[in-house]
Amino acid sequence: MDIRKALGLRIKELREERDLPQRAFAEASGLDRSYLAAIENGQINVGIKTVERIAAGFGISVEQLFKGI
Amino acid sequence: MDIRKALGLRIKELREERDLPQRAFAEASGLDRSYLAAIENGQINVGIKTVERIAAGFGISVEQLFKGI
Repeated sequence: MDIRKALGLRIKELREERDLPQRAFAEASGLDRSYLAAIENGQINVGIKTVERIAAGFGISVEQLFKGI
Repeated sequence: MDIRKALGLRIKELREERDLPQRAFAEASGLDRSYLAAIENGQINVGIKTVERIAAGFGISVEQLFKGI
């Protein structure tokens, strides 16, 4: 699977596990909500600085964020 | 440590473990050598498509590439 799709699904899975609405998680990670939506839809070639921010938003390592990818 | 620096060091470590010169690994991964050098020096906010390519070049998962990060 394309890494953009795989990462998007993984972020959505982690967010839903925590019952976090997209808007709340976007704000917690300092991201624009529509940008987060596009990431979750596998449309963005996300840079590692944003990857780092998303992992921090979940309180996990980047390695954990890419679990299974 | 900034994720760009951490990833750059990790890539260099993996490459040197395999006694792969930068030029050879860049070619194997379909990357420009000077771009790979800048990535290893922590200067690039690498996109996940390139991260995927680098992991494939080492024959490891993206999760393994980010081991410890």
